[in-house]
Amino acid sequence: MKKITEVNEWKITENQLYPEDNRLSESLFSIGNGKMGMRGNFEETYSGDTHLGTYIGGIYYPDKTRVGWWKNGYPEYYAKVLNAPEVTGIRVYLDEEELDLHTWKVTAFRRELHMKHGYLYREFTAVSPSGKHIEGKVTRFFSIVDSSIIGVKYEVKSTDFEGRISFEPYLDGDVRNEDANYDEDFWMPVHHEYAFEHAALTMRTRKTEFDVTAAMQTKLIGEGIRQGKVVNEEEHVGHHVSAAIKPGNKITFYKFVSVVTSRDYNRNSLLEEAKSRVAKAADEGFTGLFKQQMEAWEKRWQHADVSIGGDVSAQQGIRYNIFQLYNTYTGEDPLLNIGPKGFTGEKYGGSTYWDTEAYCLPFYLSTADESIARNLLIYRYRHLDKANENAAKLGLKGALYPMVTMDGEESHNEWEITFEEIHRNGAIAHAIWNYINYTGDASYLADYGFEVLAEISKFWASRVNFNPRKGKYMILGVTGPNEYENNVNNNWHTNRMASWTLEYTLTAALYLERNHQKRFIELKNELGLTDDDFEHWKDIITHMYYPSDKQLGVYLQQDGFLDKDLMHVSDLDPKELPLNQNWSWDRILRSCFIKQADVLQSMYFLNHRFTLDEKKRNFDFYEPMTVHESSLSPCVHAVLAAEIGYEEKAYEMYLRTARLDLDNYNNDTEDGLHITSMAGSWLAIVHGFAGMRVKKGELHLKPFIPKAWDNYAFKLNFRGHLVNVHVDHQHVTITQEKGERFTLSLDGQLIDIPEAGKIEV
Amino acid sequence: MKKITEVNEWKITENQLYPEDNRLSESLFSIGNGKMGMRGNFEETYSGDTHLGTYIGGIYYPDKTRVGWWKNGYPEYYAKVLNAPEVTGIRVYLDEEELDLHTWKVTAFRRELHMKHGYLYREFTAVSPSGKHIEGKVTRFFSIVDSSIIGVKYEVKSTDFEGRISFEPYLDGDVRNEDANYDEDFWMPVHHEYAFEHAALTMRTRKTEFDVTAAMQTKLIGEGIRQGKVVNEEEHVGHHVSAAIKPGNKITFYKFVSVVTSRDYNRNSLLEEAKSRVAKAADEGFTGLFKQQMEAWEKRWQHADVSIGGDVSAQQGIRYNIFQLYNTYTGEDPLLNIGPKGFTGEKYGGSTYWDTEAYCLPFYLSTADESIARNLLIYRYRHLDKANENAAKLGLKGALYPMVTMDGEESHNEWEITFEEIHRNGAIAHAIWNYINYTGDASYLADYGFEVLAEISKFWASRVNFNPRKGKYMILGVTGPNEYENNVNNNWHTNRMASWTLEYTLTAALYLERNHQKRFIELKNELGLTDDDFEHWKDIITHMYYPSDKQLGVYLQQDGFLDKDLMHVSDLDPKELPLNQNWSWDRILRSCFIKQADVLQSMYFLNHRFTLDEKKRNFDFYEPMTVHESSLSPCVHAVLAAEIGYEEKAYEMYLRTARLDLDNYNNDTEDGLHITSMAGSWLAIVHGFAGMRVKKGELHLKPFIPKAWDNYAFKLNFRGHLVNVHVDHQHVTITQEKGERFTLSLDGQLIDIPEAGKIEV
Repeated sequence: MKKITEVNEWKITENQLYPEDNRLSESLFSIGNGKMGMRGNFEETYSGDTHLGTYIGGIYYPDKTRVGWWKNGYPEYYAKVLNAPEVTGIRVYLDEEELDLHTWKVTAFRRELHMKHGYLYREFTAVSPSGKHIEGKVTRFFSIVDSSIIGVKYEVKSTDFEGRISFEPYLDGDVRNEDANYDEDFWMPVHHEYAFEHAALTMRTRKTEFDVTAAMQTKLIGEGIRQGKVVNEEEHVGHHVSAAIKPGNKITFYKFVSVVTSRDYNRNSLLEEAKSRVAKAADEGFTGLFKQQMEAWEKRWQHADVSIGGDVSAQQGIRYNIFQLYNTYTGEDPLLNIGPKGFTGEKYGGSTYWDTEAYCLPFYLSTADESIARNLLIYRYRHLDKANENAAKLGLKGALYPMVTMDGEESHNEWEITFEEIHRNGAIAHAIWNYINYTGDASYLADYGFEVLAEISKFWASRVNFNPRKGKYMILGVTGPNEYENNVNNNWHTNRMASWTLEYTLTAALYLERNHQKRFIELKNELGLTDDDFEHWKDIITHMYYPSDKQLGVYLQQDGFLDKDLMHVSDLDPKELPLNQNWSWDRILRSCFIKQADVLQSMYFLNHRFTLDEKKRNFDFYEPMTVHESSLSPCVHAVLAAEIGYEEKAYEMYLRTARLDLDNYNNDTEDGLHITSMAGSWLAIVHGFAGMRVKKGELHLKPFIPKAWDNYAFKLNFRGHLVNVHVDHQHVTITQEKGERFTLSLDGQLIDIPEAGKIEV
Repeated sequence: MKKITEVNEWKITENQLYPEDNRLSESLFSIGNGKMGMRGNFEETYSGDTHLGTYIGGIYYPDKTRVGWWKNGYPEYYAKVLNAPEVTGIRVYLDEEELDLHTWKVTAFRRELHMKHGYLYREFTAVSPSGKHIEGKVTRFFSIVDSSIIGVKYEVKSTDFEGRISFEPYLDGDVRNEDANYDEDFWMPVHHEYAFEHAALTMRTRKTEFDVTAAMQTKLIGEGIRQGKVVNEEEHVGHHVSAAIKPGNKITFYKFVSVVTSRDYNRNSLLEEAKSRVAKAADEGFTGLFKQQMEAWEKRWQHADVSIGGDVSAQQGIRYNIFQLYNTYTGEDPLLNIGPKGFTGEKYGGSTYWDTEAYCLPFYLSTADESIARNLLIYRYRHLDKANENAAKLGLKGALYPMVTMDGEESHNEWEITFEEIHRNGAIAHAIWNYINYTGDASYLADYGFEVLAEISKFWASRVNFNPRKGKYMILGVTGPNEYENNVNNNWHTNRMASWTLEYTLTAALYLERNHQKRFIELKNELGLTDDDFEHWKDIITHMYYPSDKQLGVYLQQDGFLDKDLMHVSDLDPKELPLNQNWSWDRILRSCFIKQADVLQSMYFLNHRFTLDEKKRNFDFYEPMTVHESSLSPCVHAVLAAEIGYEEKAYEMYLRTARLDLDNYNNDTEDGLHITSMAGSWLAIVHGFAGMRVKKGELHLKPFIPKAWDNYAFKLNFRGHLVNVHVDHQHVTITQEKGERFTLSLDGQLIDIPEAGKIEV
């Protein structure tokens, strides 16, 4: 745990340069626009430790699998997040001396992430080895108005230097992934051109053959401008431009870049597209673009913000999480999804985990237009064929969605996860229910949803085995959400979600039969479903085996859980934590300690199916054994603790996610931000503290406020209503900002919310 | 399965060159002398597919671990078998044309492994691209008289060629491992010298800094000899010598090599040592050395042979296995051990598995001097400190021997095996019992054995956990011998061997207390053992949990085994076999199919502890589910089937090991021979068909003969007796070739065996 930034409601600020923690800073100061993003790298050369990373959504490379011991079923190649051409780079020289904050003496430094307005600002005062003093101020943004555009403003003021200042802006395609299995170069050059202030570079990914074209225009404002040499190489275009500078003078350099790809445009029109877009941006000018950017972010916050009064640190944490979620995914492109590190690092290779369905979907459902959550579901629908192939590869029927994916194919190679962590199928089915439950858009079943549900149900029906000795269906050899156990029999969560999927698919079938009869017959034929299948599913539902212990009154995470040496985390020497850094893997596996909510995960997903008493007993049993060494764990415990009435525990759990990256809690933020778990802190507040649920089409709230806070407020998009919920120690105030009169349930009481009205309770 | 060799009692013969199967041939025609060995590579250049491999016992390299996903506890570096300098190479030219059986037309070819006399012979007739016809005859042996010496005789006869024939013998240190994690060069040059017929090269391994010096002397016999150029480079020494040749002429070239290492000699004297040894060999001449080699092998066979009458294929199989075992390990060097691929390939990286204790030890106990089996035990004693470190690394007490090792450190990185296949500790403890039971040398306990037993017992005592709900000790999270299940709870074999180890350690303690009191007190102090430890061990023995099923009357391989879909191998479509090539890994894991004897492994180890009825019930239950996809499985089933009286099943199981490599049964012999499983076919005959056991110091036999055989015979070294056991369909004939009068049990009857006498029953 290391904290290098300042606490502020709307800003992340670093007040000095930490060369030894530069990778951590680079992660924290990442910005993006849902289409592409970049770590907080400097524009100018930095010779210290740095991880240069620019990422473009959906541009990937199938790396050749490298594992210690091959297991049948692993994919030979798998999609990997790709470090993209470096497009923001600008070398800076004072006469012949190149600016480099690693070798120059830095006398002042500040890096600021302006969350409210979506830009990165940096200023520094530095002295060159030969003694030249300058001040620099750099502003960068990734436009959310035109997501192909990046703008950089680079101001330099001379303190005591008189001479020439030069800028060398460039586009560089000679980039590598740090995380590549065989140290291969994933890019090849296609086109390059340079005409001083205009330049363009097209690079193509090997194998996948995505073309990426970056075009740039630059402008130097100053005296005595001279154009210098041009570099126009296959993988690198750049030029040299200089101005005269004197003590007190200020020189400003602008760089506009557009990045377009063959995912969105015809390969042949990429160059023209990129050039016309960057030309338009340059015409508008930095000031105009920057103003649009600020306005667009302000507008986004109007829907997405969660405000917290009386706790600036908590306020900063939740805003940072929301900010970074929107940097990663805006929902505009239905072919994109939410990578666990977003555009902030290469780790975890692929792009999509069950995190999307389990944690991110509810966030987007409530904070954005419902088409965005729908797009997240359609993403999986598009991958259904590949999920069918994946199941067939394992000798099973139906669809098994991949653990990690970019293009629908499995991108992970750890047998106990790849082949056995099949509960992910349950999360994908549950997301369909969750979407329809929230939005009421049941027609989604007819359009897309039922196919996915039916294929997942077929999978479960082929994956169970009937145990005649016990008269029960079992699911053997699985890994639950708690990866601190694996290859177990009858993971309760997996069995529960399997059975629930079958039930929900049958319910969906009934709905279709009644409401979309023609489509239902069509679907049954296409999917090859018979009444025998439905009967078999019913039999599985009736006879599914759920390990439990009557004496303790709890569901058992898996067969044999009670044979473990049952201890509490509080029994451990704190020096042993985190276990994953201090214990050998086998010791973790045979211990009772839980990485991530497992039985409780079901109680979160299928919240309405369990009594409060069941939730309490299981929470009391499992929480003390949970080490929360997955960033996805505490939010589930926070939501359930809040529901049970354990307010302090709920708040404690909230704190574990809210500032995970800002405080580098797991000591791994240098690899990139924990994007998907960021949704968890929103869940902890809205589903947890505010007790938000949707039951039978009705919005339910049951808020409490943590002691440390004065108040908190958030907005919900719900079925055409935009509702502001404000909670303080005295009142809950509900304001409808958009939408017609409707009824909601507050603390179990039905309340009438007028159009554009406010209710205080 | 592919058979490319001829059936013969004493020879392995290949009658044509199979370029597409050359790697398979190279494995099959490997030779060695326990100190070093080599694949059946050609001396001259071969441009076709080949895996050049020369290996020197105990010369290894710590390769940097490469795994897909790191787990705490993995070693960062681990020892790996090292491909050593190529020392037998001789380039051959007719005028300017280089002999290469890949590009020349081969009109006749034969490769012969002479098992009786320990050499490799090869002859060929070939035509050069320009039409030169020659015949070649090449003999190579690795001396077992002086294990540093290799001799090569290379004869060439011209059919129609007149001109000059040249030889370029060389020593080449520029060799790589095919199996290296980072494609590194593991050797660096130290010294090289050349003076025509004398040359030497010293190479040093990186990191481990073993020096290996090879010295060679060569001699060309022919007319018009001319010395040519000398190559004297850092990693390659060689020279050129030629003779005149005419049609009908025969030219003979001799190459003598000595290889010595810093494992055996002072680094500074290596060069002198190598040169004096090779000089002595060259002085003796090829004929003399070759005669010694043949005599030494004949002598070895007098003890080690198993003869089979009426089944040449079976005869060849068992002799091949015995031959290759002795090529790999002779027991002369207590620091060496038996690698699963011996000196025939790189696969499985390390050198020592539990295979040594479980399968090879009984073979050496019966066929060689008892000091050799003792050396195998001492090998583990020397690694005790590292086994202690290994256990500590996993947070446990006592000693955990590595799964795979070269120098005592763990050389394997698959968590489910490395950390969880801990039954290996039981095999190492059992080997001590086995050795003492066979030899009567109980003093081994005082010298070495007790320390190993006590440290292993400490390990078990710290690895169990007491389950208060069931009042039982359990061992969670293990992998048994059957690797087609892993990370299970309460593997019956592991629990059984753990408890047995504790029992045997207590028995050993009692023996020491009574017979070596002073040493016992010393040992207790050194080992920090108290009476509390002994009491705790007794408690574990009494309350160990063993999964079983009363109804079926069987022990259960692990908790939950009966929840599996129980099927027989015979229920499978034969196209699905072997499962490891046709099923995904998770499917194998959740199936009931067994790779390798598991419950039955205990019944083999602790044979005297189980009733015949128990053995039968468990065999009947498990055998039909066993796919025997480990080469170590069938021998255990063979021994038990024989004991139960399932003679045909015993014979069927024998056939699965006896010709595993000769018939390339598992289709992987190209990677090297299955050395350790070769001991299994000897076990199947001696412990299986002949029913050999040692009980309370007495030799027991209970022979039967497979229907297909006329007779079989083998010799046993037993406590100073050399006994020949001959079995045919009418009689069992026991002949004492050496030793005093003694009593043995034949079919349950005590029989008196006179000194140098023969008994026929």
